[in-house]
Amino acid sequence: MLPKLKFDEKGLIPAIIQEVNTLEVLMMAYMNEHSLKMTIETGFTHFWSRSRQKYWKKGETSGDIQEVKEILYDCDEDTLLIKVIQHGKGACHTGNRTCFYRKITKEGI
Amino acid sequence: MLPKLKFDEKGLIPAIIQEVNTLEVLMMAYMNEHSLKMTIETGFTHFWSRSRQKYWKKGETSGDIQEVKEILYDCDEDTLLIKVIQHGKGACHTGNRTCFYRKITKEGI
Repeated sequence: MLPKLKFDEKGLIPAIIQEVNTLEVLMMAYMNEHSLKMTIETGFTHFWSRSRQKYWKKGETSGDIQEVKEILYDCDEDTLLIKVIQHGKGACHTGNRTCFYRKITKEGI
Repeated sequence: MLPKLKFDEKGLIPAIIQEVNTLEVLMMAYMNEHSLKMTIETGFTHFWSRSRQKYWKKGETSGDIQEVKEILYDCDEDTLLIKVIQHGKGACHTGNRTCFYRKITKEGI
């Protein structure tokens, strides 16, 4: 049922997570085919943790779950863009709403 | 001058490109340290092409250049989010404005 997608040599595909209402980019994490299917079937984002080598439902312990509204894939079929409603306080384990809370400037960080 | 960033085993870091005005996610591509420095110094996105194994200024031939307005990095320091003004007709080589123009649904593609 999935389109032809290019998973990398580790069987993973990057998934960009965007808030469907604010359009803020919240995070990027990796899915394998099974976690993508779990995401589609349950309607909540599931990833593969590269550091912990296990499946991970986003927000399972924190409550910061992500309700899936739309799953898109790119022209190269090697990246996903998933639009979600972010529940709880935010996407980032640091307590920030988005994981992208730091800037690089010409002068440095 | 760069923050501590985690480039992968091939020396690459994924860069999500977002339109600064519409907040549309346009594409994702890979940078190495040199193409990130070129991006910072010139103010236009430069990538490393994994398929062609060469540097690539986005829009160099098509005119669809990307003017950098903000460069952010995530909590894990392994992903970039670059906000740009997209010039020309769009980011995608297919002629679409964004590379994410196809959807996956529960029923299939």
